Amino acid sequence: MSQSSDPQTSRAQGSEVTAAVLIIGDEILSGRTKDKNIGTIADMLTEIGVDLREVRIVPDVQAEIVAAVNALRARYTYLFTSGGIGPTHDDITADSVAAAFGVGIDIDPRARAMLLERHRPEDLNEARLRMARIPDGADLIANPVTKAPGFRIGNVFVMAGVPQIMAAMLDEIRPTLTGNAPVISETIEAGAIPEGNFAGGLSEIAAAHGSLSIGSYPSMTPDGFRNRIVVRGRDADAVAAARAAIEKLLEELRV
Amino acid sequence: MSQSSDPQTSRAQGSEVTAAVLIIGDEILSGRTKDKNIGTIADMLTEIGVDLREVRIVPDVQAEIVAAVNALRARYTYLFTSGGIGPTHDDITADSVAAAFGVGIDIDPRARAMLLERHRPEDLNEARLRMARIPDGADLIANPVTKAPGFRIGNVFVMAGVPQIMAAMLDEIRPTLTGNAPVISETIEAGAIPEGNFAGGLSEIAAAHGSLSIGSYPSMTPDGFRNRIVVRGRDADAVAAARAAIEKLLEELRV
Repeated sequence: MSQSSDPQTSRAQGSEVTAAVLIIGDEILSGRTKDKNIGTIADMLTEIGVDLREVRIVPDVQAEIVAAVNALRARYTYLFTSGGIGPTHDDITADSVAAAFGVGIDIDPRARAMLLERHRPEDLNEARLRMARIPDGADLIANPVTKAPGFRIGNVFVMAGVPQIMAAMLDEIRPTLTGNAPVISETIEAGAIPEGNFAGGLSEIAAAHGSLSIGSYPSMTPDGFRNRIVVRGRDADAVAAARAAIEKLLEELRV
Repeated sequence: MSQSSDPQTSRAQGSEVTAAVLIIGDEILSGRTKDKNIGTIADMLTEIGVDLREVRIVPDVQAEIVAAVNALRARYTYLFTSGGIGPTHDDITADSVAAAFGVGIDIDPRARAMLLERHRPEDLNEARLRMARIPDGADLIANPVTKAPGFRIGNVFVMAGVPQIMAAMLDEIRPTLTGNAPVISETIEAGAIPEGNFAGGLSEIAAAHGSLSIGSYPSMTPDGFRNRIVVRGRDADAVAAARAAIEKLLEELRV
């Protein structure tokens, strides 16, 4: 098998800090709500040099959440979950994560205190106190928007599903994460040159630069298809060399 | 365990036709491209009464694609994949699906004929002919946009990643899919009533209507948080009864 036909060899090497994302919620699977959180988390992870390797979306069903949490936390450095930590009966993420870790869960005094920053004591009914249920041994993630916290247990970060709250929790978490050397990403505009015209040459360039991830991305514009080639890697010299080779290839195709 | 704390009991029952979606592509995981296809497929499946149960996003790595295809096709009625069927070296979905099924793959004369509707014979180079590589035994899915087809093998539908092409392929597929009885979905506006105020009563209503899926969905608006309650199920009478109970609950909270 040549290098060019083995996808593994054209991916960025040496990326040891990895992550997965788990989106929890029937409303995403029914199409009623369109997910915005995957892209937000993906962008942040790329910025700090963490390699997002897998995303899953599962329904509000405890057995599904437990299975996904355990599969993903075992395999990747970090797991980020979003959704299912509100006060209603369908918010079962905290209990499911406790079950996944095999630990107890109860109302956490620190989380209760946070809720009291927003709610009067007499308004802390059973439903709202659900938002203070935190698995044993977890650290809290502050929620500057509505106070009800997320939490971290082991390598799992449990966040809200509302995009504005999730983004605020992500800002809280970000300084605590360790990334790899940042990935350098270079985009080369192929314009209207069809993918089929440069695919052969690009494959050879990808084979010659095994430490880089090189992809071709078509998009439809009002003027027809346009193509972009993206080179990603941690070695600046290798990225620059691949970029030069791709620009040369495209130049030859333009004449 | 009471009904209200068992999420399984509050999901729509009797939904036997299920589906999963597999999105393939490094560009989604890096955040460079924001996925639009999950929502499109989810909407279509809801319209025809197929229950989307799981979504995964994996990178352009054959072993990952094979593992996800085999896990998901075994578990659900239908699997829909998107991405990785273009002409460049990082387009490895067709080969990966063939590997998942343990069948051969070669240039398919029907697919080659489709490519010739758009390309001159002398332009059908090795790279473009990659788009005619179809696993043995697969049926083709027409691509009215750029001609390069998708395909169906077993219960797996393999589609392009470019949203406009994926949507066109989905239109081709749709008449061939069998759904359950359609799901009736009713939305009740809770407005500014906080979730924590109605969560207790809503939990009781959900427990009393075990055949329905009842969820509460907050969103942030310029005027603060607003909440919507969604009731979903296949029994129109049950949905109407739950809706009436929820409206009564909210009415009591408004006064």
